[in-house]
Amino acid sequence: MRIAIDGMGGDHSPNSVVQGCIMALKEFKDIEIIITGKEDTILKELSKCDYDKTKISVENAEEVISPNEHPVMAVRRKKNSTITTAVRLVKEGKADAVISAGSTGAFLTASLLILGRMKGIDRPALAPLMPGVNGNFIVVDSGANAECKPKNLLQFAVMGKNYFENVLEIENPRVGLINIGAEEEKGNELTKASYKLLSDSNVNFIGNVEPRDITSGDVQILVCDGFVGNTVLKMYEGVASNIFSIIKKEIMSNTISKLGGILLKPVFKNIKKKFDYKEHGGAPFLGVDGICIKAHGSSDALAIKNAIRQAKKFYDNDLINKMKHEVEYLDSDN
Amino acid sequence: MRIAIDGMGGDHSPNSVVQGCIMALKEFKDIEIIITGKEDTILKELSKCDYDKTKISVENAEEVISPNEHPVMAVRRKKNSTITTAVRLVKEGKADAVISAGSTGAFLTASLLILGRMKGIDRPALAPLMPGVNGNFIVVDSGANAECKPKNLLQFAVMGKNYFENVLEIENPRVGLINIGAEEEKGNELTKASYKLLSDSNVNFIGNVEPRDITSGDVQILVCDGFVGNTVLKMYEGVASNIFSIIKKEIMSNTISKLGGILLKPVFKNIKKKFDYKEHGGAPFLGVDGICIKAHGSSDALAIKNAIRQAKKFYDNDLINKMKHEVEYLDSDN
Repeated sequence: MRIAIDGMGGDHSPNSVVQGCIMALKEFKDIEIIITGKEDTILKELSKCDYDKTKISVENAEEVISPNEHPVMAVRRKKNSTITTAVRLVKEGKADAVISAGSTGAFLTASLLILGRMKGIDRPALAPLMPGVNGNFIVVDSGANAECKPKNLLQFAVMGKNYFENVLEIENPRVGLINIGAEEEKGNELTKASYKLLSDSNVNFIGNVEPRDITSGDVQILVCDGFVGNTVLKMYEGVASNIFSIIKKEIMSNTISKLGGILLKPVFKNIKKKFDYKEHGGAPFLGVDGICIKAHGSSDALAIKNAIRQAKKFYDNDLINKMKHEVEYLDSDN
Repeated sequence: MRIAIDGMGGDHSPNSVVQGCIMALKEFKDIEIIITGKEDTILKELSKCDYDKTKISVENAEEVISPNEHPVMAVRRKKNSTITTAVRLVKEGKADAVISAGSTGAFLTASLLILGRMKGIDRPALAPLMPGVNGNFIVVDSGANAECKPKNLLQFAVMGKNYFENVLEIENPRVGLINIGAEEEKGNELTKASYKLLSDSNVNFIGNVEPRDITSGDVQILVCDGFVGNTVLKMYEGVASNIFSIIKKEIMSNTISKLGGILLKPVFKNIKKKFDYKEHGGAPFLGVDGICIKAHGSSDALAIKNAIRQAKKFYDNDLINKMKHEVEYLDSDN
């Protein structure tokens, strides 16, 4: 399998990317990696490492798109950016998957413009894996589409099911509709119509899930529009981070609590790791016609290696073709 | 001031309600309370207490609406419920404010049907006070209206400003629009149009607030539709509660961490209290033509007393008339 990776994506690139690729080469025997970026910059990073030189190559790309740039404008203007070059390698058949820890918007835009959507999918979606109390879950869409129609949510559910079954190896995952009440008739026009569509579909639809129950992790696939999904994602991140910072501050307030804090250090480290969604690998763009894995902007080498593992699972399970088959069927039905 | 209170609302009624009323009588000299409920039940509770008998009376109401009943159906069918009877006392001029810890939907429905909306307000909203790291904040609407228009969000902002200035005594509170990006052009149709309206208004609008920043409490009034607001509210509750239950579980896992847990007990108690939004009094229905305070379903006597304090602040500051004046002006403008 050949993987194209944006050498300049993320806060710690190119070092994190290069180190992550080398970690991945040690773990997975059957991969080759193409890193995009300024040739001399990437080669300089690589020269510090010991690795099989036949397995990593560099594709020169002079421009870098920053997360602050307007995605569509940046992708159109910087045709030779590290992101667009990496995506183009998939389009040209030179790579089987693409990974970037750079701008989510620019990566999604480039993927849509260059690789296109799967037939039957109107709106590809972002679906990062998140840690729950009783297991991991995804929220689809987590922010790619601020406005959605009921059929989009059904498509999200079907793609999510395929992702869980093939990449995470969980059979018949539970699908829930994020809603502000448990009863079928609750919510807005989108949720009411989506409830009906999901009930009639062949996913394991368990009904509405109220936001207070999302992070239990009892339901694996939660569908909603990208505005609500992004709100869920960012509330999760914000509340968890605020609680931990308050705990830290309170612990430092007197000697007894400081001592308690020292004794609980391993506990907090474990929990913080569990709640840090950056630890949980990359987020696939579900519905793009190609394997695209978005790694977190703050990815370190391990996170990059995990994103590569995820790309590999997509590839080894022929997931894009499997999804295409299921969503084509959806299209003819609705 | 005369306050009508639903004697059978909430998980711990009628005891919590009666005890809360008696606590309030001790603290506030100038109030009289009318408790609705089966006369013998309420009088029996009251008979256990020592209080000024001229200050509390009972209005007989035979029926109780449970939180599981369909709000509109229940209010229409149970005309003699404790909730509707309490609201009716305000309409009839026998009370100046109404409080219930019962079904939010039924209380809101009864308030709208019996007291009506303020002129200029299309959609009254729910606005519970929530604890943030650097101060309290409200999310308007927190769940009364699943679908909203831009002008509703502007009305929420103006009512929220009046609430903060008069009840919480914070001058020129900061108003933010909950959105999935910081830039003006981010979000869905509702947020894009609302951004413009809010920018042109006379509230202290500071722009978009991403959900990860809501619980910092740096912005006092956060406006959004009731679907998003309810999602924020329930995510806050769910994530906080899950983190604390995981911490508890991890602490119990070995002797050292158990000891650490004992040393940190006061710290956790403080923080849990800070993050428990039930501690922070009732939620007003902003935009109803009358003082309606919804106390949390799990209210204890202290929470009921705090809801009474809030009703009193509304009354003492003539807040309903002040709001009416400001929103009438809005109406003629938009």
